[in-house]
Amino acid sequence: MSMPSNLAIARDAVLRPLTDVAADMGIGPHLLEPYGRGAAKIDLAAIDELADRPKAKYVVVSAITPTPLGEGKTTTTVGIGQAMAHLGHRATVAIRQPSMGPTFGIKGGAAGGGYSQVVPMEQINLHLTGDMHAVTAAHNQLSAMVDSHLHFGAEPVLDPRSVTWRRVIDVNDRALRNIVIGLGSRADGVVRETGFDITAASEVMALLALADSLPDMRARLGRIVVGSTPDGEPVTAEDLRAAGAMTVILKQAIKPNLMQTLEGTPVLVHAGPFGNIATGNSSVVADRIGIHSGEFLLTEAGFGADMGAERFFNIKCRASGLTPDAAVIVATVRALKAHSGRFTVVAGKPLPPEMVAENPDDVHAGAANLVKQIENIRVHGVSPVVAINAFPGDHASEHDAIRQIAEAAGARVAVSTHVADGGKGGVELAAMVAEAAHEPSSFQMLYPDEASLRDKVSAIATQVYGASGVEYAPAAARQLDRFTELGLGHLPVCIAKTHLSISSDPSLLGAPTGWTLPVREVRASVGAGFIYLICGEMRTMPGLGRNPAAMQVDIDADGEVVGLY
Amino acid sequence: MSMPSNLAIARDAVLRPLTDVAADMGIGPHLLEPYGRGAAKIDLAAIDELADRPKAKYVVVSAITPTPLGEGKTTTTVGIGQAMAHLGHRATVAIRQPSMGPTFGIKGGAAGGGYSQVVPMEQINLHLTGDMHAVTAAHNQLSAMVDSHLHFGAEPVLDPRSVTWRRVIDVNDRALRNIVIGLGSRADGVVRETGFDITAASEVMALLALADSLPDMRARLGRIVVGSTPDGEPVTAEDLRAAGAMTVILKQAIKPNLMQTLEGTPVLVHAGPFGNIATGNSSVVADRIGIHSGEFLLTEAGFGADMGAERFFNIKCRASGLTPDAAVIVATVRALKAHSGRFTVVAGKPLPPEMVAENPDDVHAGAANLVKQIENIRVHGVSPVVAINAFPGDHASEHDAIRQIAEAAGARVAVSTHVADGGKGGVELAAMVAEAAHEPSSFQMLYPDEASLRDKVSAIATQVYGASGVEYAPAAARQLDRFTELGLGHLPVCIAKTHLSISSDPSLLGAPTGWTLPVREVRASVGAGFIYLICGEMRTMPGLGRNPAAMQVDIDADGEVVGLY
Repeated sequence: MSMPSNLAIARDAVLRPLTDVAADMGIGPHLLEPYGRGAAKIDLAAIDELADRPKAKYVVVSAITPTPLGEGKTTTTVGIGQAMAHLGHRATVAIRQPSMGPTFGIKGGAAGGGYSQVVPMEQINLHLTGDMHAVTAAHNQLSAMVDSHLHFGAEPVLDPRSVTWRRVIDVNDRALRNIVIGLGSRADGVVRETGFDITAASEVMALLALADSLPDMRARLGRIVVGSTPDGEPVTAEDLRAAGAMTVILKQAIKPNLMQTLEGTPVLVHAGPFGNIATGNSSVVADRIGIHSGEFLLTEAGFGADMGAERFFNIKCRASGLTPDAAVIVATVRALKAHSGRFTVVAGKPLPPEMVAENPDDVHAGAANLVKQIENIRVHGVSPVVAINAFPGDHASEHDAIRQIAEAAGARVAVSTHVADGGKGGVELAAMVAEAAHEPSSFQMLYPDEASLRDKVSAIATQVYGASGVEYAPAAARQLDRFTELGLGHLPVCIAKTHLSISSDPSLLGAPTGWTLPVREVRASVGAGFIYLICGEMRTMPGLGRNPAAMQVDIDADGEVVGLY
Repeated sequence: MSMPSNLAIARDAVLRPLTDVAADMGIGPHLLEPYGRGAAKIDLAAIDELADRPKAKYVVVSAITPTPLGEGKTTTTVGIGQAMAHLGHRATVAIRQPSMGPTFGIKGGAAGGGYSQVVPMEQINLHLTGDMHAVTAAHNQLSAMVDSHLHFGAEPVLDPRSVTWRRVIDVNDRALRNIVIGLGSRADGVVRETGFDITAASEVMALLALADSLPDMRARLGRIVVGSTPDGEPVTAEDLRAAGAMTVILKQAIKPNLMQTLEGTPVLVHAGPFGNIATGNSSVVADRIGIHSGEFLLTEAGFGADMGAERFFNIKCRASGLTPDAAVIVATVRALKAHSGRFTVVAGKPLPPEMVAENPDDVHAGAANLVKQIENIRVHGVSPVVAINAFPGDHASEHDAIRQIAEAAGARVAVSTHVADGGKGGVELAAMVAEAAHEPSSFQMLYPDEASLRDKVSAIATQVYGASGVEYAPAAARQLDRFTELGLGHLPVCIAKTHLSISSDPSLLGAPTGWTLPVREVRASVGAGFIYLICGEMRTMPGLGRNPAAMQVDIDADGEVVGLY
């Protein structure tokens, strides 16, 4: 089965005027600012203007624990959105903005695939409306002000060794992970160790995704902690008088971007925080607009249900006040087979041939992960729907195996061929989603604000991850106590662990039990509004491989982009 | 005399629809891509579509050697553009895009001032359409590929100590001037010294300004030299297979941005290369569009006529093939007084009171600089017009003094009050410009392509700067010979020296003679297409002051920007 490339399909798309797309959402042209031919910013006044319209059914799209190849969550989100129209429903899709660095690294673009894509593909994968760049600029403006503060020895005194605020760049650049700055002469700043993270790992990005308005973003920026005084008192962006300038730099970036799918479904593309040290969810403001702009709002949450969906429920919904009506779990034959432990999947490499051969037993052998992720949705009181994302090499018997596993766990389930067939391939799935979303919701967060930080961590570790307990390194325990002392105990927690296992050990497949979550370090994203716990090696700056995607990207004789996937 | 702030004036402006502004230029809506409410990108197909329309009179706006405060060159360019309409002429204005870093540093915005501004002021001074960010991203993509090449030890072998390609960021960040990268573990790259420059200092920016089409930009990017092999052979961006990705990153950035003045005059805002190590001129493609879009095209060249205008004539016009018809030299009372050597002017501080007092003798005492800059225009066969940019505290007797000096040197001259009065304040000046531009042009470059690099440098040093000779440091002489050997002898030269003196010594005022130009180092911007010579301390990364402009910038209760100047 041969299909044109994503770029070729995307380029052939006939785009609807965005004013028409917006009109379907109840959004008038006075609220739109076009950015290039394929995108428009939506003014946040839309939130109030739409407030009296009916609330959409709110559906989060998550997945089983993915292979390093990814299981097509964006594609499925887009596919369901498109399929809803085939059922006569108006749906809005909300996704994260892809990071540009990785586009030129290993993975290529991230706007869905096949006939379930967000278009124009080049625009979403490159600069879009400049939000990533604005986050980079705002973050680095604060960084420069931190070092300027040190250089001039300004008040409050900032201990250079306490500075945790790094710099960011939206390029995969391994050589910037650990650097020494301030070398040269006396006029060239204070010498110290620091480094760059990729922009998606910026607290500014996390905060952009969680702010519910411009003033709220301003306040959150002010609360960012960059380091401490010699006495250990936190020094904030507000203390450095940087938060105003950062807000002004981000004034356009706080507005969600309207795009569309290949079939003209409205798509809100906004923010792109990391899925390990941050929420991995698109923005609260986008969802606050989308929640009144159709009958369904489909929002994507990064990585597996233990990661993106857990944060969606306990961090994002806490910030937005919105309550979900259903959750989709994307499952693939290859991921279930991978969870059998019988195969090794490597990013950028083809699947092993024995994995591609028809064998429903291999699928059944990986069932535990899907079953656990179904439970992880249900523990939040939300109805799960398993979406079998069909791939070209799949066998019907293997789809049936997934169906049996899902049904045995009491979940709705459907096969979807949205990649090959667009919206019409997702109709059965969309019908299941609609049905689940119309059940009465009994959504509940896993823990209340007033629970202790330790209890919050414990709730996630035991109820979602299946750990038997949590073990804190001595420094981590002290940090946790210190954050509680500083009055941050009311914040939700974000557990930074591998996305390749429900546990904190990337080599443990399925649904591991009898293990202990090791907390190495605890940090506070006070501006974003959560405490995060480092459990394992977290890479916040990817590197380029020997032959990165960038080497294939170019323009052709007609000036058209080639080599972007 | 009290005038509202630039921001207040700009915010009160009623903007024309950009499609109307474009229509006045003969540019249809099919060539426009809107970016936000105040700007649109113009497709480069406009160059061909407009080719049959009459050629505009081409006027470069330059200045006498400025004080550290700047003498209002952008303001005058905008003012003349607006004034042309009062005379019944259609004019287009072309300016550089301001760098965002300095907006939050010492100087505030750079979109003109008073009633001669480009609007929306916030948009031009912040992200505009993202071109600066795209230059940053393209530059740093190459940087990451350089370090990845070193990390993997790929072919051709690149000597890490030979790497001259740094990184860039559009933030004033002194601590990044000199850094060590690649620290950490084996996976974190190769340890070496490098640093960040501000984005305006990127060769990618210089190249964006000189490319005459998308394919030409692609070719220039490929020619960028990042370092050399152990044998001293140049290693290029093409060798690293980075130029295609860089081109794709810059695909939108190569399109000029259409904005407008407060009076609705079309303004092409495009590219912003440094004025010392690069041309300090806006883009060739913008001028290629503007040259057929009205009766006059007013294009600004950075710093004094010895700097920006010389590069305009000998580098930019060489790249574009366009020939100028007149040149404006902006002069102010304060700058002439400063050239008397009787006062000290410091950026960010008020003028000394004795300098503000009426004293035409002080103006006459600074005459030499203006006279020399008039000669510097005339040596290129172009008619000079002196624009006296009137400031609130000026005295008529002092304007008369400038008029006498200019007339004695045979130049046209007019006082202009465009800052206080908008276009109608610049009518006398615009009439002079029109008159000068209608004289037959005898434009000639200072040197032919085939002159030796030494002869080119010598021509500028002696004929424009008034030096008696050029002295090369031994290493500089060797570099110059090496570039000639490498076949780069045909390139024009760009002399990187202070902009605060016609000489290379910032403390020498007026029109110094009897001095020797000391060339410390020679570098090649092969992609941009010029050889540049370092004569004195060149700072390519500004720092923030103790109380940078950023500390004043914020949003107010209505979400409007405050504190941006």
